Amino acid sequence: MTDRSPSEFWAQRQGLRSRPLAEAPAPDLRQERCSWTSPGSAQEPVAMKSNEFPTRTLYASRYCSDDRRRTDVFELLANSSGARRGRLHTGHGIVETPAFMPVGTAASVKAMDPGIVEELGARQIVCNTYHLYLRPGHRLIRELGGLHRFMGWSGSILTDSGGYQVFSHRSLLQLSDEGALFRSHIDGSRHLLTPELSVEIQRDLGSDIAMVLDECPPYPCSEEQAQSAVARTTDWAWRSKAAFEALAESGNESQFLFAIVQGSVYRNERLRSLEDLLKLDLPGYAIGGLSVGEPPELMLRTLEWLVPEMAVSKPRYLMGVGRPIDILESVARGVDLFDCVLPTRLGRNGAAYTLEGRLNIKNSRFKRDEAPLEPFCDCSTCQRFSRAYLRHLFMSKEILAAILLTTHNLFFYLRLMKRVRAAIEEGCFSRFYEDLVPRLAEPHGN
Amino acid sequence: MTDRSPSEFWAQRQGLRSRPLAEAPAPDLRQERCSWTSPGSAQEPVAMKSNEFPTRTLYASRYCSDDRRRTDVFELLANSSGARRGRLHTGHGIVETPAFMPVGTAASVKAMDPGIVEELGARQIVCNTYHLYLRPGHRLIRELGGLHRFMGWSGSILTDSGGYQVFSHRSLLQLSDEGALFRSHIDGSRHLLTPELSVEIQRDLGSDIAMVLDECPPYPCSEEQAQSAVARTTDWAWRSKAAFEALAESGNESQFLFAIVQGSVYRNERLRSLEDLLKLDLPGYAIGGLSVGEPPELMLRTLEWLVPEMAVSKPRYLMGVGRPIDILESVARGVDLFDCVLPTRLGRNGAAYTLEGRLNIKNSRFKRDEAPLEPFCDCSTCQRFSRAYLRHLFMSKEILAAILLTTHNLFFYLRLMKRVRAAIEEGCFSRFYEDLVPRLAEPHGN
Repeated sequence: MTDRSPSEFWAQRQGLRSRPLAEAPAPDLRQERCSWTSPGSAQEPVAMKSNEFPTRTLYASRYCSDDRRRTDVFELLANSSGARRGRLHTGHGIVETPAFMPVGTAASVKAMDPGIVEELGARQIVCNTYHLYLRPGHRLIRELGGLHRFMGWSGSILTDSGGYQVFSHRSLLQLSDEGALFRSHIDGSRHLLTPELSVEIQRDLGSDIAMVLDECPPYPCSEEQAQSAVARTTDWAWRSKAAFEALAESGNESQFLFAIVQGSVYRNERLRSLEDLLKLDLPGYAIGGLSVGEPPELMLRTLEWLVPEMAVSKPRYLMGVGRPIDILESVARGVDLFDCVLPTRLGRNGAAYTLEGRLNIKNSRFKRDEAPLEPFCDCSTCQRFSRAYLRHLFMSKEILAAILLTTHNLFFYLRLMKRVRAAIEEGCFSRFYEDLVPRLAEPHGN
Repeated sequence: MTDRSPSEFWAQRQGLRSRPLAEAPAPDLRQERCSWTSPGSAQEPVAMKSNEFPTRTLYASRYCSDDRRRTDVFELLANSSGARRGRLHTGHGIVETPAFMPVGTAASVKAMDPGIVEELGARQIVCNTYHLYLRPGHRLIRELGGLHRFMGWSGSILTDSGGYQVFSHRSLLQLSDEGALFRSHIDGSRHLLTPELSVEIQRDLGSDIAMVLDECPPYPCSEEQAQSAVARTTDWAWRSKAAFEALAESGNESQFLFAIVQGSVYRNERLRSLEDLLKLDLPGYAIGGLSVGEPPELMLRTLEWLVPEMAVSKPRYLMGVGRPIDILESVARGVDLFDCVLPTRLGRNGAAYTLEGRLNIKNSRFKRDEAPLEPFCDCSTCQRFSRAYLRHLFMSKEILAAILLTTHNLFFYLRLMKRVRAAIEEGCFSRFYEDLVPRLAEPHGN
C-alpha cells in the first residue's frame, strides 16, 4: 500500500488523468507488438510472457486441440498471467476484450441514452430475447429493420436465448425436452420457448451474437439435476445449431451462435457439457449457470478447472457476471466477456462504485459532501456534480439521480475493462490484479 | 393553408431545416436594426412597425409613464403587432425574450441532464422555493455555493416565492397577514412562510430573479376574496422589498426582485393591484393567479386589458403559462416570460407536441410507426428514434421514454420561442401568429 489514494494511484499508473478513457485509441496490437498473430505464424503456440501468475496457464485442452489465433469472430492478441487480450469481430464493429457488456434488457440500457452508452466506451450490449419476444415482439422489430435500427444502437448486440429469464421469473409452467412452457409476466399468456423459436427470435432481432437456449438449473441443485440439465442443454444446442443453419440463408450473414456450458458446480458435469458442446464447433462458448447464488469462491474454483479446458481460439463469455471483483478474478482465469445488470440496477437504487468501495448515496453523511462520487473520476457525473446534489436528487426521487449514478457506474466498469486490457497488453496483469483486488472488495464505503 | 405540411411550411419559412435552432446565433438587434435603442435615442417612443395587428397596441399606461427602453435588467428591442422582442440581463447571462423557462422544481428539470437543457437552448429555468426550502434546505444550498453550483446550471435561474405551492398543495393550514402556515408534504412538519422568509430563502439560493410572496386565490373566487388577496399581496410585496433591500448588502448584487399582480379576473382588482405594485418600482412584474382553472379565453381577455397598463420598460412574466397556444396568444398581448411544467410533465406521461397536434405515444396506432414523433423536427429524439420505439419504451416503463419525450417537448417549446422572436424581429409577427394559431390547437393528434 502506498499513501496515495487508490484512485490517484491508478490514475497515475495508467496515465489517464488528463484524457477521458473513452477517447484513448486502442493500439493496433497486431501491428505493434504481437507479431505472433501475423498470418505467417498463425500456428505458433501462444507465448506466455512470464511466470508471474503461475497458478493459471493458458493451454489447448485435451478436449480442444484448436490452437488457431484467429477465427471468424475472435482474434487472440496477447495474454498475461492467464488473462487474455482479444478482439471480437462482429457485424457491428470490433469489441476489444476482455469486455463488459451493459445490459439493455428491453432494448434500452436502463436510464441511459444510447449515445451516452457509446460515449462511455461500450461497444457491445446485451439484449433480452425473453423480453423482446413478449414486447414488442420479434416480428415487429424485424419489420422495423432489426434491433440495431429500432433502438438506435450502431454498436454490437448480443442477445441471450431467453432461457435464463424463463427460469428466473418463476413463470415456468412446464419443462420438457421440447422446450420451456412459461407464462408471460406481462399479460399471463402462455408460450412455449423451444430452441428453434429462440433462434428464430434472435434471427429476427438481428443481433450480432445469438445464444443457444439452455437449461439453467438453480443453485444448489443435485448432481442428477445438473446431469439432466447438461443433457438437455446439449440436445437443445444441436437443435439450435440446426435451426440457425437452416435460417442462415435468409439474411444476416454476420450473426454468430454461441453455445452455453452448464453443469452447475460439478466438475464431471461441466467437463462433459463442454466436451459435448465442443463437438458442435460453434464460434464462441459461454459459461452459464454461475453467479446464480453460489459463493463467489465456488464460482472461481469452477472457472479454474473449467476455463483451461475451453478452446483457446474462441471467446469465453461468463454470463451474468458480475461485481467488479468477480470480473477481475474471472479475467485472471481466462474469461473474455461479461455482462451484468449491477452497474445499472445499483445506479437506480442509489449505489455507486468507487475504487474506495461502494457507496450508498442515501447515506446522510453525504448531505453536505461537496466531493464527487469518486475523487479523480473523469466521468461526466463526477466532473459536474457533488455527492450532496446526487443525494438530494435521489431523496427527491428525481429521474436525474438514476441517470447520473448509472452513468458513473457504467463508466467505472468500462474504465476497469480498459485498464485490464492495458495491463494485459503491457504484460503486467499480475501486478495490476494484486494491486486492485483489495480495492474492489465491497461494500465498505457505505 | 397550403398543401405543404405545417412542419414543412415552418421549416422552409424559417430556413431552419439544415441547422439546429439552438445553434443559430441571435442577431445583435441593437447594432443591426433597432437604432432607436442606441444611447442617444433612449427617450424616443417605440416605433410601431405596422398596423397589421390593430387590436393590441403597445403604449405607456396611465399608471406608468415610464417609457425607457432599457433598465438594469431589461432591454426592449423591437415590437411587432403588440408582441415584444426584448433581452433580460441577468447575473448568469442574457435571456432573449419572449422566453420560455423550463421548470426545475427541485433543482432538476425532470428527466433532463442540465447539459441537454442548455443544448436545447434554454437560458433561464425556474426553481421552486417551496420545494428547496423543505428539501434539501436553503442554508445547505448556500453552504454549498448556491443553487447554480449545486445543480450544475450555469444559465440564469428564477425562483418563485413558494406561495403558489403552499396554496396548491392543499397543505395550507392558516393564512394570516403575517404569512402562510403550512404542513410539509414530505414529513408533515409545520412551517410559516412569510414574505421575509421567502426573500431570505431566495437570497440563500442565489437565484438571478426572485419573486415576492403573494396570495394566489383559486378560480373561481368572489370579488371580495380577490380584493383581500390583492391587499395582502401588496402588503407582502412592500415587506418583501424591504427584506430584500435589507439583505442586499450581504452579497448577490445581481439578484432582482419581481412583483406579482393578483386580482383574479376582476378588472378593478387587477388594475388596483398593478397600480399599487407599480409604486414599488421593482424591475419586473409578473401576472399571477391566471391559468388556475379559468377558461383560456378569460385569461386572454384579462391580459388584453391588463398588459397595456404595465410598464413598457419592464419585463412581463405570465406565471405558470402554459400550452403553446396560450404562450403564442400571450406573446401577442405583450407578455415576455413564461414557465410551465407541461412539456416535462406531459413528456413523462407519454404525450408529445407536434405542429400537427399533440400525440399520445401510448396509442396503438404508433405500434409500427417508423416516423419520428414530429416529421422534420431537428431534436435529438426525432433525429434518432421512431414512434414505434418510443411507444415500446413507454409501454415497458423505461426511463428512456421520459428522457426522450421530454427532450422533444422542450425542444418544441424552445423552437417555438425562437421562431416567435424571429417573427417579431422581422416585423411579421401578425402573419406568423395567424398561420400558427390553427396548428397549435390541441389535442387533435391523439
